[in-house]
Amino acid sequence: MKIIEGGVCAAKGFKAGAMRCGIRKSQTKKDLAMILSDCMCSASAVYTTNRVKAAPILLTREHLADGKAQAVIVNSGNANACAPFGIENARREAKAAARALGVKTEDVIVASTGVIGQTLPIEAIEDHVDAMEMKYDNSLTAAEAIMTTDTKVKTIAVEFEADGKICRIGGICKGSGMIHPNMGTMLCFITTDCAISSEMIRKALLTLVKKTFNRVTVDGDTSTNDMCTVLSNGMAGNREIAAEGADYDVFCEALHTVMEDLARKIAADGEGASKLMTCTVSGAADEDTAEKLAKSIASSALVKAAMFGSDANWGRVLCAMGYSGAPFDTEAVLVEFASDEGSIAVCENGRGLDFDEDLAKKILSRDEVKINVTLREGTGEATCWGCDLTYDYVKINGDYRT
Amino acid sequence: MKIIEGGVCAAKGFKAGAMRCGIRKSQTKKDLAMILSDCMCSASAVYTTNRVKAAPILLTREHLADGKAQAVIVNSGNANACAPFGIENARREAKAAARALGVKTEDVIVASTGVIGQTLPIEAIEDHVDAMEMKYDNSLTAAEAIMTTDTKVKTIAVEFEADGKICRIGGICKGSGMIHPNMGTMLCFITTDCAISSEMIRKALLTLVKKTFNRVTVDGDTSTNDMCTVLSNGMAGNREIAAEGADYDVFCEALHTVMEDLARKIAADGEGASKLMTCTVSGAADEDTAEKLAKSIASSALVKAAMFGSDANWGRVLCAMGYSGAPFDTEAVLVEFASDEGSIAVCENGRGLDFDEDLAKKILSRDEVKINVTLREGTGEATCWGCDLTYDYVKINGDYRT
Repeated sequence: MKIIEGGVCAAKGFKAGAMRCGIRKSQTKKDLAMILSDCMCSASAVYTTNRVKAAPILLTREHLADGKAQAVIVNSGNANACAPFGIENARREAKAAARALGVKTEDVIVASTGVIGQTLPIEAIEDHVDAMEMKYDNSLTAAEAIMTTDTKVKTIAVEFEADGKICRIGGICKGSGMIHPNMGTMLCFITTDCAISSEMIRKALLTLVKKTFNRVTVDGDTSTNDMCTVLSNGMAGNREIAAEGADYDVFCEALHTVMEDLARKIAADGEGASKLMTCTVSGAADEDTAEKLAKSIASSALVKAAMFGSDANWGRVLCAMGYSGAPFDTEAVLVEFASDEGSIAVCENGRGLDFDEDLAKKILSRDEVKINVTLREGTGEATCWGCDLTYDYVKINGDYRT
Repeated sequence: MKIIEGGVCAAKGFKAGAMRCGIRKSQTKKDLAMILSDCMCSASAVYTTNRVKAAPILLTREHLADGKAQAVIVNSGNANACAPFGIENARREAKAAARALGVKTEDVIVASTGVIGQTLPIEAIEDHVDAMEMKYDNSLTAAEAIMTTDTKVKTIAVEFEADGKICRIGGICKGSGMIHPNMGTMLCFITTDCAISSEMIRKALLTLVKKTFNRVTVDGDTSTNDMCTVLSNGMAGNREIAAEGADYDVFCEALHTVMEDLARKIAADGEGASKLMTCTVSGAADEDTAEKLAKSIASSALVKAAMFGSDANWGRVLCAMGYSGAPFDTEAVLVEFASDEGSIAVCENGRGLDFDEDLAKKILSRDEVKINVTLREGTGEATCWGCDLTYDYVKINGDYRT
């Protein structure tokens, strides 16, 4: 498996397009994107666990009930959640895309991100979408169009071999604020030319989302609009993966790489973030325990603020573990901070160590810092990704709507 | 019942004292306080739910096993949590207080607040505590000594009648960061001269802590050191309250007033807070549901940041309700913002209303703002208290240890 260029258009037969249709007030920011496969795809998706679900989520769930889709339409600038005419406008959005792309309405996936509670200006979409140019090398412009408070484009693609054929998986995603396990305003669109049934996509997606996107936390808020979809058009020519086996394993490995990469990019681009924080708990009784502990650390406002200050305040790490609800022996905790500047142990057997504060500060001043916690209870291990809590997070969210 | 002066010394027979003994580097900030009753008290306490419990919590639980106590010693500047010699130093702290005050070691309650993980400089306490002056009108200086990042002294007292006798309940508390349901670095010491058994204190405390301190959230972190204690010395002369009845009810009402007042003061003084945020959910299926929803709103980083910006971003309120885990009809939600500037409805039947943005901004610009959510499912109601998320929260916690 190797990393390749091309993002969501890396796999054979996938086009993308983007434009400014006028949902946003901005005269320059693009606010509409589409993805189209040359032929029908097997498809599956996972959605937000928020009880308040945006209209496009409800519609997409309906459209994917048969495990088939051929296109995606995504708008930014308006979430179409808790909004008047929500489901009606989501349906009109799908219909507009279907007409523009020449596919069936029920084969269109619809996604929205932006402000909650305002009526989607559906006419802006209907009036302009026909003019969108769809191209085979257009991943970047689509990735840009789905951004909201994101500061960086998030894209990745990999190439691997299944059944003797070269296959590709690529994706784009957006997500910056309102990110929390179980998927906060996160939209992710993954395409592949590897032939695989929608049942097996679903199986892989459910397994891998737990280890990737659901282990990202920015602010503890879970959005109404999250969605991660995988579309497979089978154009790589391999025999369709319809059961577990070697091909399925290699597909999962590639999909895992794509999803983990995008998950890390979301955490690193957390609203206002100045650094990516990777929390790994190992030696736990089991993986669930490790995950609970790692999530609690990565979610702690106090740990996040300490990371912003490059302050080796490990007491907050222990404290966050303590209120996670997961059982562990508080007397057997090793805490280390690490980055490309090195590694330093700050707490052993649940007690503070005398450590070099200057070195610790240097280690924590990097763009990516690691909090490594080791227990002595088993082989359970999990990594969660987050970011620091900064002045800019407050600034961005103190007045988002204006 | 009426509000009176005197704080933790308002009840008959309670003295307090405070001093700087040298735990903190600061040459001016007091770091040690004690409370003493003229005679033995019935007593009970509730503690942090954090699995990592500070040594003073463990010791106090041991000392209160018999429902009796006569004195309290509290230090600030060091939490004595995850620290070398933790339990040994907590014991030495109790012993030093006992010697200074002429009471038994096992009748001393010990509490600590401050940095986690550093050895408590117990000699500073042992060397100076004998010189502490204990006085009957000294609540304020004790309240000051237990402050950490608090910016305001938190104290209250009330007077009421039970069994024909005038009784008083007063308290002091501290708490500002690391505050979350179920009690984040919150220390609260309540004294009363109303005669009541330790069993009935415990009953009242467990009921009322759920409706007061456990409904305060500042940053989602739950500390290792929290404690709320009630000491009753019976000097009001009423017949001891040993069962439910009219006297117990009036005692609970007074204790509720004291605890709610202190809880609100903690929320209003949340680290970096510029305003108190009161979230009330009514019309829920039951009180538990209402509480879950109100807590989720009050805890949301995005709602808190919007309140900082006086931004009527009600979509975030619905979103926070949606991921609370509590069931509710998303199509039957009314959201109103209120303050002493008036009240404005922003969302009805789960959909946005056209509202006057200028008026909403004016309402949300006050020191105390209310988020009132009304459902149509029953009579369950709950209020939670929080504060906005500001630049100063990040500043305070980005470099707390230095």
